[in-house]
Amino acid sequence: MLAQLIALDWGTTSLRAYKLAEGGQVLEQRSLSSGIMQLPKAPRVIAGRECTDGFELAFDQACGDWLDEQPGLPVIACGMVGSAQGWCEAAYRDTPANVATLGTALQTVRSLRGVDVHIVPGVIQRSRLPNVMRGEETQVLGVLQTLSNEAGADLLIGLPGSHSKWVEVADGCIVHFDTFMTGEVFAVLSEHSILGRTQQRGGSFDDEAFDRGVQVALSADGETGVLSTMFSARSLGLTGALSATAQPDYLSGLLIGHELSALARVLRHRRNSVHLPSIILIGNAQLCTRYSRALDACGFARVALVEQATERGLWQLALAAGLITPNPSR
Amino acid sequence: MLAQLIALDWGTTSLRAYKLAEGGQVLEQRSLSSGIMQLPKAPRVIAGRECTDGFELAFDQACGDWLDEQPGLPVIACGMVGSAQGWCEAAYRDTPANVATLGTALQTVRSLRGVDVHIVPGVIQRSRLPNVMRGEETQVLGVLQTLSNEAGADLLIGLPGSHSKWVEVADGCIVHFDTFMTGEVFAVLSEHSILGRTQQRGGSFDDEAFDRGVQVALSADGETGVLSTMFSARSLGLTGALSATAQPDYLSGLLIGHELSALARVLRHRRNSVHLPSIILIGNAQLCTRYSRALDACGFARVALVEQATERGLWQLALAAGLITPNPSR
Repeated sequence: MLAQLIALDWGTTSLRAYKLAEGGQVLEQRSLSSGIMQLPKAPRVIAGRECTDGFELAFDQACGDWLDEQPGLPVIACGMVGSAQGWCEAAYRDTPANVATLGTALQTVRSLRGVDVHIVPGVIQRSRLPNVMRGEETQVLGVLQTLSNEAGADLLIGLPGSHSKWVEVADGCIVHFDTFMTGEVFAVLSEHSILGRTQQRGGSFDDEAFDRGVQVALSADGETGVLSTMFSARSLGLTGALSATAQPDYLSGLLIGHELSALARVLRHRRNSVHLPSIILIGNAQLCTRYSRALDACGFARVALVEQATERGLWQLALAAGLITPNPSR
Repeated sequence: MLAQLIALDWGTTSLRAYKLAEGGQVLEQRSLSSGIMQLPKAPRVIAGRECTDGFELAFDQACGDWLDEQPGLPVIACGMVGSAQGWCEAAYRDTPANVATLGTALQTVRSLRGVDVHIVPGVIQRSRLPNVMRGEETQVLGVLQTLSNEAGADLLIGLPGSHSKWVEVADGCIVHFDTFMTGEVFAVLSEHSILGRTQQRGGSFDDEAFDRGVQVALSADGETGVLSTMFSARSLGLTGALSATAQPDYLSGLLIGHELSALARVLRHRRNSVHLPSIILIGNAQLCTRYSRALDACGFARVALVEQATERGLWQLALAAGLITPNPSR
């Protein structure tokens, strides 16, 4: 089966490449660590020329052989590759942002081998505290493609990660979203703070320790806020009430619990209702498992997981941009 | 004037040494970076013997020459030096802990040069989420020494630092305290997270940026919690609304603002009153300036600063322990 599109999900720390065929079917996929903040440096010959540009090198690593086989394949990319620190800046689109039409606003950069890379713009919400996303807008489109029309009525799309996003959609538009730096805070605390010194990492998921952390965030003790409760990961260790192996998942549950309890509180204020929306989660399966457990504890009754949102979204945007046709000649 | 006591404030990252005379008068003081987590390593000869022990080396650096001059001087030390990772563990005393009588519970370690170092125990609060302190109990005693009896009636003692402590005292006892990891979170975010990448540090204090951060924490936007609002240090930078030089103090204000707004909320719940206690601040002068500004914004109307609390507290504990006498023979 011939490929029709190369789709790249190019973030800060990783680069995922998909070779897609008719209907968006995934023929092959790769995951590289060549995110825009850790691009390759070793020079290579690309298209007959010695090359030292990190973006060109990463692009060649990700899909050079696919383009050698089928030189005419169109290429689309989303994520931080379109940021000011990326390969070519694709200016943000303002909320409310119609995700289906983002395909008409692609930014193009011509690679050394002469192939154009079409970059999806991110979305900005110019609220008092602004919010920005790059890559998540494509995943949101991928989710909307899989939903029936009714399903979107009272829905919040959650994208856990280093910076988790919670996205409200209406009539195919991203109308509002919030960002939480929970994942990155967990990483820097574990690697660089005193909390990491007593942690023993690398074990399997300790669901009991995780749930305990979530419950602390939801309890009266949680009212002091995460800057205070996080110290309990150390003090419970000092008193022998939390083992070294349980500390990482306890801290993870604590941070995610604070994120979701704040989210629930804010949603109830905004909606002026105790009722919480349905949740669709997209992302890493292990992380979605954690968020599902914590969402349940925080009173979110309806939670569903969606997979392959990125590649579906990129396929749809390539269609909207005319890079591919729905029923190509064979 | 002859010295009567060597007093050490020996923490995780620093070691401060005081040579004290009658009445606790400071004759000389030194500040070294030989905290218990960064002890010296280069071997030296101490008391005629080659020595490689980090605690001995740091102790000798801090006050070896003072002891050479006056070999009989008693030595007292507070802080992390008494922790399980310290020179000699001094078991925690439980709350309610009478700070004046901590001097009767000193732990002794004999140094290579034959001098005993008397270590002050820390305090533990065995609440559901336990809390611990080491060093702050001595500062609290130092504060109480300087107050009139009436002043302590409705008082909260604040000790800003890497891990700030907020201590309630009644009848000379520490009855309750809270810990916030605000200082360490600021440090790890600035040094290791994406927020640090766009920060330009090292300028003078930007009070406007700091106050702006405090106000965000107190605003309706602050309801999403610090894990969410901290992203604004980046997004306001991306939109040109916060300069690179303003970002560090904005983030500082944001974190301290979240700490103090949570503290005020919890105090009002606990006391079942809108009225907030008087505050006494002890610590680094620049940090106390930040906290004073933020306390004012958070509705704490009465804030006073106390200096030299550590050396006063250590002097009092040495008196209580009988290491020195109030009126020595001359």
